[in-house]
Amino acid sequence: MTHTVVSSRSREVVIGFDRPFCVIGERINPTGRKRLAAEMAAGDYSSVQADAIAQVEAGAHMLDVNAGIPLADEPAILAESIKLVQSLVDVPLSIDSSIVEALEAGLSVYQGKALVNSVTGEEERLEVVLPLIKKYDAAVVAISNDETGISEDPDVRFEVAKRIVQHAADYGIPAADVVVDPLVMPVGALGQAGVSAFRLIRRLREELGVNTTCGASNISFGLPNRHALNATYLAMAAGAGMTSAIMNPLHPEEMAGVKAADVLLGVDPNCARWLRRYRDPAAQSSDADRNSRERRRRRV
Amino acid sequence: MTHTVVSSRSREVVIGFDRPFCVIGERINPTGRKRLAAEMAAGDYSSVQADAIAQVEAGAHMLDVNAGIPLADEPAILAESIKLVQSLVDVPLSIDSSIVEALEAGLSVYQGKALVNSVTGEEERLEVVLPLIKKYDAAVVAISNDETGISEDPDVRFEVAKRIVQHAADYGIPAADVVVDPLVMPVGALGQAGVSAFRLIRRLREELGVNTTCGASNISFGLPNRHALNATYLAMAAGAGMTSAIMNPLHPEEMAGVKAADVLLGVDPNCARWLRRYRDPAAQSSDADRNSRERRRRRV
Repeated sequence: MTHTVVSSRSREVVIGFDRPFCVIGERINPTGRKRLAAEMAAGDYSSVQADAIAQVEAGAHMLDVNAGIPLADEPAILAESIKLVQSLVDVPLSIDSSIVEALEAGLSVYQGKALVNSVTGEEERLEVVLPLIKKYDAAVVAISNDETGISEDPDVRFEVAKRIVQHAADYGIPAADVVVDPLVMPVGALGQAGVSAFRLIRRLREELGVNTTCGASNISFGLPNRHALNATYLAMAAGAGMTSAIMNPLHPEEMAGVKAADVLLGVDPNCARWLRRYRDPAAQSSDADRNSRERRRRRV
Repeated sequence: MTHTVVSSRSREVVIGFDRPFCVIGERINPTGRKRLAAEMAAGDYSSVQADAIAQVEAGAHMLDVNAGIPLADEPAILAESIKLVQSLVDVPLSIDSSIVEALEAGLSVYQGKALVNSVTGEEERLEVVLPLIKKYDAAVVAISNDETGISEDPDVRFEVAKRIVQHAADYGIPAADVVVDPLVMPVGALGQAGVSAFRLIRRLREELGVNTTCGASNISFGLPNRHALNATYLAMAAGAGMTSAIMNPLHPEEMAGVKAADVLLGVDPNCARWLRRYRDPAAQSSDADRNSRERRRRRV
């Protein structure tokens, strides 16, 4: 059984096939959030602070922290954000950047065992990121594309993932510390995006034995009723073997999909977490209120 | 590719791995609906009529019709209900009874190729129901229990299903006309109910090549937030290979789960049905309204 163990200063989170689906909060990311980008660039971390607390309260097991702001000092801002977030909440973090200097700045201040997001299958990325992972004893998200781009063929993407895992082993990083991102494409543009993702996730689990993650909301890009589509995708991906996702824990539909998948995959013993989350009608969303009204009307 | 073809007077519905998930409306069933039972027993079919029209408008591809009322003349009421429903809506029906005389009464008035719900693996049931299926050229729901009861072991249930398919072949009924019900247990009572169902559905599809169906809402019996659990179950079961369910098409969450699974399994070409259903915000539920507000706020 593959366990990816990450930690904060005092709390360990285990990602694994026999564990509840690991929710990695996506909100601390200025990409496409102009106000947040401006704030962070100006040294105002009030939204970062609020996002950290709200996501953990909503049930995030980990938080992704990204400081990708054009023309800003990304390494410094990322390191500052990580220090701040670690002072506020006690969940492990995913240090998210495409700039190696920013990853190293983040790792150098991080307390615990971080998840680094990410490395691709491109040789020159592997050669700079993997030594960092080893040096700081971190885990890493491996994205299944390489110099040739993102293949539409899930079997080609499987081979890329396999090569990253082998490269990691060369650096002394065990497969358990590599969490593969199968790269989910928008199903509105590529009709086979769901089928391909499920096939790839299944192969990654059964043949490569690795944990997997993804940016879930990409699947529904451009389509209406995105929350329902995201929630369904998350649950079906979990059914195929996915063990974590970078997602918005503030969305009740997505969280219900993930929590229901835990129940249905037998990793929520006695449905204890489901009951705790949904038993109290006052704690539920408008969905739940509608549910309880309908429940009174319908046959069981 | 296994296709179960059922029909009404003028419309054919194909259940298959390459087809949209077949929604069989469950509402015309007096079990646990006292008022409906009293009405039907008194010859008042106004609720049957309303339920038939509402379910087809909500997107049911087929309707289940059950007239199981204690002490009533079930064969006569079932036949009457079927004639009425067929005069109102043009979808194929599932003729649902545990009484063989009622099944025959229903089949004798049915126009088209019906689905008969159901036969179990008990020898004496097989010997009376299968000849009826052959006589009326119907398809049949096969429930995977037998004289020994319902096994908790999905592999035992697989063997029961396999035996029913073999028995059907002895009567000249092809496997394509046998739709297996894996029997979903409440996950609140049996923690492995979901895992078992998915394993069984996958084996039924991959090894036996048959279509499958189930009464979906049983999975969530006794638990809160049942609609989210049912919707997630339906989608994950579809991901494992389930091709139809007897369910309530009036519940928007369950329908969204099924329709999202169609998109993600690549059986809703160009997301055309998803777009038609959810593109118009006015046609959407409060969920959708909340979605569109959140969409404006969030990064894509």
